[in-house]
Amino acid sequence: MKVRPGRLVLKCDMLVGSTDVPPQMTLRQAARKSVVMGLSDLAAKGVNPQGALISLGIPRKTSSKNIDELASGFKEARDEFTIDILGGDTNEASDLVIDCAIFGFAKKVVGRDGAKPGDHVVLSGPFGYASAGIRILMEKLKADTKFREKAVSSVLYPQPRIRLGVSLVDNDLLSSSMDSSDGLAITLHELARRSGVGMNVDTLPLPEDLQDFSRVNKLDPYELALHGGEEYEIVATVPRDRLSAAMRVASRCRASLIRIGEVTSNERVRIRAGGKWRNIEDRGWTHLS
Amino acid sequence: MKVRPGRLVLKCDMLVGSTDVPPQMTLRQAARKSVVMGLSDLAAKGVNPQGALISLGIPRKTSSKNIDELASGFKEARDEFTIDILGGDTNEASDLVIDCAIFGFAKKVVGRDGAKPGDHVVLSGPFGYASAGIRILMEKLKADTKFREKAVSSVLYPQPRIRLGVSLVDNDLLSSSMDSSDGLAITLHELARRSGVGMNVDTLPLPEDLQDFSRVNKLDPYELALHGGEEYEIVATVPRDRLSAAMRVASRCRASLIRIGEVTSNERVRIRAGGKWRNIEDRGWTHLS
Repeated sequence: MKVRPGRLVLKCDMLVGSTDVPPQMTLRQAARKSVVMGLSDLAAKGVNPQGALISLGIPRKTSSKNIDELASGFKEARDEFTIDILGGDTNEASDLVIDCAIFGFAKKVVGRDGAKPGDHVVLSGPFGYASAGIRILMEKLKADTKFREKAVSSVLYPQPRIRLGVSLVDNDLLSSSMDSSDGLAITLHELARRSGVGMNVDTLPLPEDLQDFSRVNKLDPYELALHGGEEYEIVATVPRDRLSAAMRVASRCRASLIRIGEVTSNERVRIRAGGKWRNIEDRGWTHLS
Repeated sequence: MKVRPGRLVLKCDMLVGSTDVPPQMTLRQAARKSVVMGLSDLAAKGVNPQGALISLGIPRKTSSKNIDELASGFKEARDEFTIDILGGDTNEASDLVIDCAIFGFAKKVVGRDGAKPGDHVVLSGPFGYASAGIRILMEKLKADTKFREKAVSSVLYPQPRIRLGVSLVDNDLLSSSMDSSDGLAITLHELARRSGVGMNVDTLPLPEDLQDFSRVNKLDPYELALHGGEEYEIVATVPRDRLSAAMRVASRCRASLIRIGEVTSNERVRIRAGGKWRNIEDRGWTHLS
């Protein structure tokens, strides 16, 4: 592959059947998801993906139909995200293992350590649907058809925010950024720790349907939104005077950008819920097993 | 990572505990080997390695001592081969899985499809020791101490031929090249098929000690050398009039380069053994399991 000017950014992510693939996920979806995991990470850094290498570990008993399914998922990702799949390696393993190394070239890259007090904390979408979706799939929780479809599809068919991330970074609109696949709470803590700042979350979006679902199933919607996982959103900070510019860029990308709070100097990560400030715990979701 | 001029070359290789790691191999050695697998491939292409990403799948019960052992193997590879380990991903898996993506930048890269009739077929070392070593480890075959040490260390401590490969390609001395980790026979067939040529192997080296080992254990030394595997040597072709130049380069690198035969136009891959020409079967070794 011919190099492009700038920096080379690479990321690898390993998907493991027993911990990352709910039973209802097809192998085609699992293959696509293994690519999305790395794409989401590059998107948060502002890097346009160029290509991928895929290493497969598959159990001996895997049927050729299932291998075709995996291949069709990789092809789907390749076409959907216009990347080249440049090669890979296939092995026998006791569990399904897909390791996807993604790379891209970029003139600008945003890190995790640039958030400054006064910056805005933003998200590329609401949180909670994926963790609701996983619980619907794994624990058979109750949900109306529409919510179920929305929540489950966010698990089976995650969308990396490539265009949004690249556009925001190209326009120098982010001071720090990270993808949220470990959950919102862990991501906020990581950005705060790396930047030596704190965060006050004062307007976390908790959509009506997520609140209804939580009520019916006696769940805490804040728990779903903060300590879930498998959400491939961008969590970022925008310099104090650039919020409206960032919103315009998001709208040109037909993407959402939601302000949820502000960077502080006190190194605490807090949320205002029910009129009170409380600390957000630095913990995430546990894998399926 | 700042890009360098030329081409970006990437390779990923997945090492799976149950199929790629003999019981006698330490986790430190397994970690180092997982990096060597990709380095050997880049070496055969003539690409100096720059960095690596490592994805780990480890069983839940893995002790912290074992995780330290893995880490020390990656550090050993990093220092031994002067590469950067840029990141990675850690997961729970039912088997040990190490996927290593290696990359480098190169102005020149050699492929598998450039062999021409009349070219010399060369190896970067003799074949057979690694397959003897695996059999000593797995089947407890008899071997004298010195041979045992040599054969087993070629399994536990493989050496990628980086300097040799890069120097040969930099000096335009290879018309096609490939690393031999699937075994010599498969590698010769692959080069021949991709180049649309054949190969006559007339002087395959079968060292005395390998012949002795074969005799004692009633094994066919040709089988060990041709259909083994886990040998991280370069198998390449050198243009007709460049052999002595290639030998000089190898000697400057303090590496061996062994001429074993000639490229032909007839698309057959043959060996002369016991005074007769016979076809080399296009088959390799089977994994440990």
